[in-house]
Amino acid sequence: MDYNQAALEMHSEHHGKIAICGKVSVKDRDDLATAYTPGVAEPCRRIAANPDDVWTYTAKSNLIAVVSDGSAVLGLGNIGPEAAMPVMEGKALLFHDFGGVDAVPICLDAKTPEQIIAAVRAIAPTFGGINLEDISAPRCFEVEQTLERELDIPVFHDDQHGTAIVVSAALTNALRLTGRDIAEARIVLNGPGAAGTAITKMLLSLGARDIVVCDRTGIIHQGRENLAPHKAELARLTNPRGLTGTLADAVPGSDVFIGVSTAGVLTKDMVRSMSERPIVFAMANPTPEIPYADAVEAGAYVVGTGRSDFPNQINNVLAFPGIFRGALDCRARDINTEMKHAAVFALADLVGDDLSPEYVLPDPFDPRVARAIAEAVAKAARETGVARA
Amino acid sequence: MDYNQAALEMHSEHHGKIAICGKVSVKDRDDLATAYTPGVAEPCRRIAANPDDVWTYTAKSNLIAVVSDGSAVLGLGNIGPEAAMPVMEGKALLFHDFGGVDAVPICLDAKTPEQIIAAVRAIAPTFGGINLEDISAPRCFEVEQTLERELDIPVFHDDQHGTAIVVSAALTNALRLTGRDIAEARIVLNGPGAAGTAITKMLLSLGARDIVVCDRTGIIHQGRENLAPHKAELARLTNPRGLTGTLADAVPGSDVFIGVSTAGVLTKDMVRSMSERPIVFAMANPTPEIPYADAVEAGAYVVGTGRSDFPNQINNVLAFPGIFRGALDCRARDINTEMKHAAVFALADLVGDDLSPEYVLPDPFDPRVARAIAEAVAKAARETGVARA
Repeated sequence: MDYNQAALEMHSEHHGKIAICGKVSVKDRDDLATAYTPGVAEPCRRIAANPDDVWTYTAKSNLIAVVSDGSAVLGLGNIGPEAAMPVMEGKALLFHDFGGVDAVPICLDAKTPEQIIAAVRAIAPTFGGINLEDISAPRCFEVEQTLERELDIPVFHDDQHGTAIVVSAALTNALRLTGRDIAEARIVLNGPGAAGTAITKMLLSLGARDIVVCDRTGIIHQGRENLAPHKAELARLTNPRGLTGTLADAVPGSDVFIGVSTAGVLTKDMVRSMSERPIVFAMANPTPEIPYADAVEAGAYVVGTGRSDFPNQINNVLAFPGIFRGALDCRARDINTEMKHAAVFALADLVGDDLSPEYVLPDPFDPRVARAIAEAVAKAARETGVARA
Repeated sequence: MDYNQAALEMHSEHHGKIAICGKVSVKDRDDLATAYTPGVAEPCRRIAANPDDVWTYTAKSNLIAVVSDGSAVLGLGNIGPEAAMPVMEGKALLFHDFGGVDAVPICLDAKTPEQIIAAVRAIAPTFGGINLEDISAPRCFEVEQTLERELDIPVFHDDQHGTAIVVSAALTNALRLTGRDIAEARIVLNGPGAAGTAITKMLLSLGARDIVVCDRTGIIHQGRENLAPHKAELARLTNPRGLTGTLADAVPGSDVFIGVSTAGVLTKDMVRSMSERPIVFAMANPTPEIPYADAVEAGAYVVGTGRSDFPNQINNVLAFPGIFRGALDCRARDINTEMKHAAVFALADLVGDDLSPEYVLPDPFDPRVARAIAEAVAKAARETGVARA
């Protein structure tokens, strides 16, 4: 199937993919006087008197913004806000179809992190959550951290945390299969961008102790100079054995390779240099760090990619609809670490007894996924005191 | 019917009034690969190469933002962005039901005109138009003028221009009934806020020459000191006979009274002092400047109010859905004076041969209204060179 041509047809047929619809309709004067003036003044008065009533009387209760400045869209780079619209609409559609979440694409004409922050801060009263998307690193870190601190609704950068949650679930199951403890696993991560940085931090928070992170220059260690702030932080948090050199120096003896980088950087020889029954998640899109067949042939025991045409697709759609469904269901103020961990384990557990090297993650169309994650996330929110309901 | 109670029930039943829905749905891997990656990259590439393609491939083509800072909501005043949500959602619902326009409420946490401008400028790439709503005067003037100048999509402050269009249509028909030319009519307008200022300017643009504007202090004239900028402008543009004094000094001998002010300021004696067969539009909400029955008893020939329980309801829903429908249909860059005039005459003409003192405007539920306005607006846009299609 030619997805490019199909996409052009789908997107031009209806001019995009999402629309606004009414939960009620205005057919006569009574409807008009109830949905609009004079009746509408009464819910306004209630909210003015008790701000939490906004969750009862308005669409904020189920409405999130999918916000991008178009600076790092898919593999297309900085294509700007208008050209980012199809992706953000697509995300909104997936939120709707998979999570029952009302999501509005908001593509920003904003050049600096400060402008993105100011715009999101301004529109925040409308929404029950903010999903940041396709904002280039390292700008995305400042944007997310500032907004998360300042706003009283969840702010979630899916490229970071959605990816980290799905990778962590896949790794949890792959480690179960290979009988390893995450605390003992030697993990190499290539590509410390938005996703790679978040994956590293999440694996650390889940108990990993030996992660070696590589960028284009090679292994990140405390002796390297002029590191960007997020890489300097990774240098402090990772690489306990003080490795130096290139990716090829990091991989031998490792149990896990996680690639969020570029096609072809992992060779068959490198896979052969890994420990027994190694785990390879090669998520460069559309072409993985190593072809699926090559990884298997070189002895990788569990192989995951970003692609739907091989087993173990590591796809964010497994996480973000359920996470926001859960956050909205309990009117969460935040999506904290405990909620993210709850999502990881809920997702991993759905695989259950079907766990195999070719099945470490549920199918994206498995109807149990969003509900299971939502319930786990809302429970964790309530237990950690960030739920309003 | 108790609209307050009905409104609380309607608004809490579904948590608000609007939702997002899909124009397509994602049921299998092919759908996912077409609506999202990898297929979605192709419309992104097209838009990056040719920015006008955003109108073909995205929801921008039918999507507007209903933007408010919550500073002047209905008669409730500065109740803030959260409490403004029910009104903005209501407006979005009316855009949908009456005009087939997808409208998103955007309630802003913004204290200054500069912050409102920055936020709207930032989100503008997402939308095909911006409807400003319930922003207090005089801040609304700066916000609208700046955004209209800077953005390449229509920016329309409905409290100003929607009201002005409907009042102008009503007055056009009322003057037909009384056989007067607008150029000869003596018009008194009370309440030069957002609506009153826009009504005054629109009537001038339609040929009115003798308008006297009054505020709480009395008649606005060039001798008054310390006038706010928009009132100083009105002093230059109006009051050609140089009247001074109070509203009671302005009204005698006038042909038209237009109130966008407060309940009870127009007395029966004042109506009796007007010319023969006077026209009274008393639009203070919910209680008019003079009770409907009193105006009729004192001799007013045509009486309009903002209320649905009397004839001649002057209701903005008659204008805004069709105006944005027309602007979006032709991908207009602007809603200019010619387009507003086209809306006035299209609306007035729909009354046709049924014109009577009790019927100077179509019924808001007349299904012809939005279509007739949209066609007239799009035609005017094409004739004045602001249409992209």
